[in-house]
Amino acid sequence: MSIQKSPPPTRTDFVAFEEVHSRWNDNDVYGHINNVVYYAFFDTAVNRYLIEHHVLDIVNDQTIGLVVETQCQYFASIVYPDLIHVGLKVVHLGNSSVKYAVAVFKNDEDVACALGSFVHVYVDRSSNKPTAIPQNVREVLQQLLKVS
Amino acid sequence: MSIQKSPPPTRTDFVAFEEVHSRWNDNDVYGHINNVVYYAFFDTAVNRYLIEHHVLDIVNDQTIGLVVETQCQYFASIVYPDLIHVGLKVVHLGNSSVKYAVAVFKNDEDVACALGSFVHVYVDRSSNKPTAIPQNVREVLQQLLKVS
Amino acid sequence: MSIQKSPPPTRTDFVAFEEVHSRWNDNDVYGHINNVVYYAFFDTAVNRYLIEHHVLDIVNDQTIGLVVETQCQYFASIVYPDLIHVGLKVVHLGNSSVKYAVAVFKNDEDVACALGSFVHVYVDRSSNKPTAIPQNVREVLQQLLKVS
Amino acid sequence: MSIQKSPPPTRTDFVAFEEVHSRWNDNDVYGHINNVVYYAFFDTAVNRYLIEHHVLDIVNDQTIGLVVETQCQYFASIVYPDLIHVGLKVVHLGNSSVKYAVAVFKNDEDVACALGSFVHVYVDRSSNKPTAIPQNVREVLQQLLKVS
Repeated sequence: MSIQKSPPPTRTDFVAFEEVHSRWNDNDVYGHINNVVYYAFFDTAVNRYLIEHHVLDIVNDQTIGLVVETQCQYFASIVYPDLIHVGLKVVHLGNSSVKYAVAVFKNDEDVACALGSFVHVYVDRSSNKPTAIPQNVREVLQQLLKVS
Repeated sequence: MSIQKSPPPTRTDFVAFEEVHSRWNDNDVYGHINNVVYYAFFDTAVNRYLIEHHVLDIVNDQTIGLVVETQCQYFASIVYPDLIHVGLKVVHLGNSSVKYAVAVFKNDEDVACALGSFVHVYVDRSSNKPTAIPQNVREVLQQLLKVS
Repeated sequence: MSIQKSPPPTRTDFVAFEEVHSRWNDNDVYGHINNVVYYAFFDTAVNRYLIEHHVLDIVNDQTIGLVVETQCQYFASIVYPDLIHVGLKVVHLGNSSVKYAVAVFKNDEDVACALGSFVHVYVDRSSNKPTAIPQNVREVLQQLLKVS
Repeated sequence: MSIQKSPPPTRTDFVAFEEVHSRWNDNDVYGHINNVVYYAFFDTAVNRYLIEHHVLDIVNDQTIGLVVETQCQYFASIVYPDLIHVGLKVVHLGNSSVKYAVAVFKNDEDVACALGSFVHVYVDRSSNKPTAIPQNVREVLQQLLKVS
């Protein structure tokens, strides 16, 4: 097994940021925010970004993004009441799927505490069958592609 | 049973406010933020207020506040990604216990979506026995007493 | 303020029981299951009881129970990985609303660690207007009325 | 990007199983258990297995397992009130780290709904420095190695 981790990214590695408040019960018995909660930060940040850019309507959209794969590496602990900043960028934009790189920054720190990925496959809400990413969504996602 | 609810309070009924971001998974299957989550808002807001006022140190305090009673009435639904503002005031300050009134406001609305209460009893962390509220905590709590 | 608590109830005070596993992250930084989580136990137990008795279909029901009020008193701490047994009974059955008493028992203990209440108002899913409790639901709820 | 997923494993691919009840609020607005919650299942199952085998004492252990990497692929949806069975095996056992494969099975199904991995690095609780996995823990982990 390799647990050689990639070096933690910094803020300049990401295109957009969403703030998420930590909560008292995010801390677990070891005094740090539990590993599970990072995924709630990712979920919250990605979907809020889409909502704020008017390409996600939870109630009415016929095409929705289902999560098919997620992953996270943890570099440094975070603790309630830290303010979380989730860095976002798109690292692959396919016909029906999009893969985000997501990172957790705390307060004013420039080096990430965690780095993850998050894959949405767009499906028809009724049939659950994969479908092309709608054009308005694609345009927003293209703006999240990091040009290095 | 009386389900005659009190009329929802407004922002002027509270002394202090703490913001809490809602999260994607706070929404339940009926499309609104689940009733359980409001208590996470209360917990997060009360403790963050104490931390910000330098009278709660989660790791080192020998006297800690244990929750012995909570309650909530729900007036109107809230939905992720609403920004939550928790209104706080102290409605009873005893020797070892404090009762807060807490309310959930969403975004810029002036009328509360929910009204709750939250009782901390201060105990010695090792023995779990009730103890007097420390003087520095008491001074902060007194500032939350609503003078009407 | 009275924090004179009622004496903790015992198992014979309840009509039905639902098991719920505790989870690692239910424990908070003080080493006990966080106060918020008890409400997740209540929610989970009440709705599962209704599903198991074939009177709750989350996807298709046109009449749904909305939570309008909840409350909990905490008597003794619980800790992951305790197995939780939620005691249930109906303490008021109105035209459109039902009030449950709910209690948290851990493992094989006979005395409750917490006692709460939980009020559902039945509403039409589209209009959100209160409506009479459907007859099949009412029959199940009547079996939860505790005859002392 | 490859979203070629591995074929879902079956129960015979795992060595041990832990049950976890789903909860009402695990379901998100799309009517299925939210992707974040699977990681709570993993966390709960791995640690409960260790506790049941007497090699994890949350309060007193000086050497604790910190989560440094997790991952999950989602094959099929699960819905509250499904009963979850988490399959466990150890896929790498190093000096200070252990990597588990974990899978989510629902009710009586033999094919997994999700497959994940979960890496603990053992550290000294005070210094947070990696340390050898304690011998009693190692013996339990060795029994989770899958001999194919």
